[in-house]
Amino acid sequence: MAVYTDVTDADLTAFLSQYDIGRARALKGIAEGVENSNFLLHAGAGVYILTLYEKRVDENNLPFFLGLMEHLARHGLNCPLPVRNRSGGALGRIAGRPAAIVTFLEGVSATRPNEDQCAALGEALGRLHVAGADFPLRRPNSLGLSAWPDLFGEVSARADEVQPGLADLIARELIFLERNWPTGLPSGIIHADMFPDNVLFLGDAVSGVIDFYFACVDNLAYDAAVCLNAWCFDKDQAYDSQKARAFFKAYERVRPLTAGEAEALCVLARGAALRFTLTRLVDWLNVPPGALVHPKDPREYVRKLQVLQTIGGAADLGLIR
Amino acid sequence: MAVYTDVTDADLTAFLSQYDIGRARALKGIAEGVENSNFLLHAGAGVYILTLYEKRVDENNLPFFLGLMEHLARHGLNCPLPVRNRSGGALGRIAGRPAAIVTFLEGVSATRPNEDQCAALGEALGRLHVAGADFPLRRPNSLGLSAWPDLFGEVSARADEVQPGLADLIARELIFLERNWPTGLPSGIIHADMFPDNVLFLGDAVSGVIDFYFACVDNLAYDAAVCLNAWCFDKDQAYDSQKARAFFKAYERVRPLTAGEAEALCVLARGAALRFTLTRLVDWLNVPPGALVHPKDPREYVRKLQVLQTIGGAADLGLIR
Repeated sequence: MAVYTDVTDADLTAFLSQYDIGRARALKGIAEGVENSNFLLHAGAGVYILTLYEKRVDENNLPFFLGLMEHLARHGLNCPLPVRNRSGGALGRIAGRPAAIVTFLEGVSATRPNEDQCAALGEALGRLHVAGADFPLRRPNSLGLSAWPDLFGEVSARADEVQPGLADLIARELIFLERNWPTGLPSGIIHADMFPDNVLFLGDAVSGVIDFYFACVDNLAYDAAVCLNAWCFDKDQAYDSQKARAFFKAYERVRPLTAGEAEALCVLARGAALRFTLTRLVDWLNVPPGALVHPKDPREYVRKLQVLQTIGGAADLGLIR
Repeated sequence: MAVYTDVTDADLTAFLSQYDIGRARALKGIAEGVENSNFLLHAGAGVYILTLYEKRVDENNLPFFLGLMEHLARHGLNCPLPVRNRSGGALGRIAGRPAAIVTFLEGVSATRPNEDQCAALGEALGRLHVAGADFPLRRPNSLGLSAWPDLFGEVSARADEVQPGLADLIARELIFLERNWPTGLPSGIIHADMFPDNVLFLGDAVSGVIDFYFACVDNLAYDAAVCLNAWCFDKDQAYDSQKARAFFKAYERVRPLTAGEAEALCVLARGAALRFTLTRLVDWLNVPPGALVHPKDPREYVRKLQVLQTIGGAADLGLIR
C-alpha cells in the first residue's frame, strides 16, 4: 500500500484547474501500487485515479507508460485512459512530483481466480498483445534475462537466510536459463506484471487491466508465462493445468502461439518464476526502516520455480496441440 | 494509513449478499483511519465505506458508535449513515472481523483551514452538540482527565528522549490540570477528535464529519477546545485568534457557551493539548516493527501546550463576550 506524498487541498485545486474534469469532490489515498502514490479522485465529471510518480520511477519512461495506456484504451482494451489537460498533455506536476490523472475502472480483483476468470485473462492478454502491435514507442525489459545476474549479485550472499540452499538453486537456474533461453520469438508490447491484483473483474468478465508500469517490449509468450505463475498455481503451490488450459484456449482464440513459442514455454515459465523470486528477494532483504510496504514472500516463487523444474513440456503446462 | 486485513472477492460477495445495496463494483483499501481497515466500496446502489474493526477497537463500543452516527445523520448532521443489513443490523462480520458499511461522503479535508472553514467547523460542531443531546447511549471519555496520569506513566521514563525536559513539563501540567479542571459544565456527546482530517469540505462549506470512533460523553466545551488546538494554530505554531473568533461566532449562533464554559476555556484547551501530547508520545515511543503507520510528532502538541500556558483568558483565545 502506498501513499508517499501528501496532496493538500490547495495543491489539488491548482492541479485540477489545468483540466476540464470539474472540481474535486473527494480525494482518498488508496492502498494500491508499490512504487507510486495513488489517490481515488471524485471530480465533477466522474471518478479518476490520480497517480504521483515517486523517486523510484524514471520520469523518462512516463511518456511510454501513459502513451501505451492511451493507445491500448483507444484500441478497445479496458485499461485506464490518461486524461489530457488543457495544454494537451497527460503528464503534469503536483506537490513537487510528476503526476497524471487516468480514468477509474470498476471491478474487483480475483483473490482465487477460477477457470472462467483464467479464460477471461487469456483473452484480455491476447487482445493486449494484438492491440500493442502498432504502438510506436519502445522500452526494453529492464527486469528481463540480462538483468537477472545483477539482481542475483545483490542478494546472493544473503539468499540462504531466506531459505537454505537458495543461492545455489538460483545460480544453477541462471546457468540453465542462459543456455536455454529462446531467441527469435514474436516480440512486442507486454504487460510484464499481469498478476491478479492488476486485473479487475465484474463477475467472471475482465472489466479492467491496470498498472502498466512494468510494461515493455519483450517476448509475447513470456507475458503468458508470467500469468501461468501468478494465476495457475493453487494455494498449496501445486500447478493447476486445467486453469492453464482455459487460459491458453482463450488466448489462442485471439492470438495463436507459434510452434517456437510452444516449445519455449517451459523455459519462459521458469524464467518468469526466477524474475519474481529475484525481485522479491531484493525487496525482502532491503526493507527500509519505517517502510510502509510489506514485501511479498520470495519463497512462494522459489516453490513455483521448483515445481516448474519438474515439468517436462508445454502440454504439462496446459498448452494443448 | 491503514489496511490491516485483506478482504477477498469471495468474502465481499458473501458479506454483501446480506445487504440490499447491489453487488460490488469496486473495492479499494484507503489510507484513512489508524485503528481500523477502511475500504471505499462502489456497489450497485452507490458509494460506501466498508470498515473492518481491528483488535484495538473494543467491540462492545461499536453499537454506541454506529448508533450515534445514525442518530446524528437522522438529525441532519452530514455524517456517515450506517447501512442496515436485511436483518436490520448495522454490524456484521467479514474476514473474521466485525464490520460495518456506512454511506460515503463527498468532500476534501482542509490542509490549512481558512477563516471561513473555521466558521463552518464551529457551526458543524454546535449542531453536533445539539443533535447529540437526546442520544440515549452513553460512553465515558476513555482518554479524558482521569486517563492522563496512566498515559504519562507509560512514557514518563522516555519522554525526555523526544524533547529534553518534557517529562517535567508534563508532570507539572498534570498537577495544574487536576487542580483547575472545571466541574459542572454542560456535558453531552462530543466528537473528541474533530481534526481537519475528519471534516470534509466542498468549497468552504462542511460536507461531512467523519470518524466517530473517539466520540463519548464529556464536557461540550472540551470538544471546542480540541478544535482550537487542531484548527487555530498556524504552521509556525502561533495561535491565530482570528480563526478562533470565526469558529466561536459560528458555534455560538447554534449553541451559546455558558459563563462557566467561557471561564474554563483556557484550562480545557491546555487539557486538550496535553491529551494529544500524551497519546502521540505513547504511539511515538511504541512503533511496532513493521508498522504500516507513521506516528504523528508529539512535539507539535508540546509546542501548542506551551503557547496555551502563556494565554491569560478566553478573550485571548478568541471568545468575544
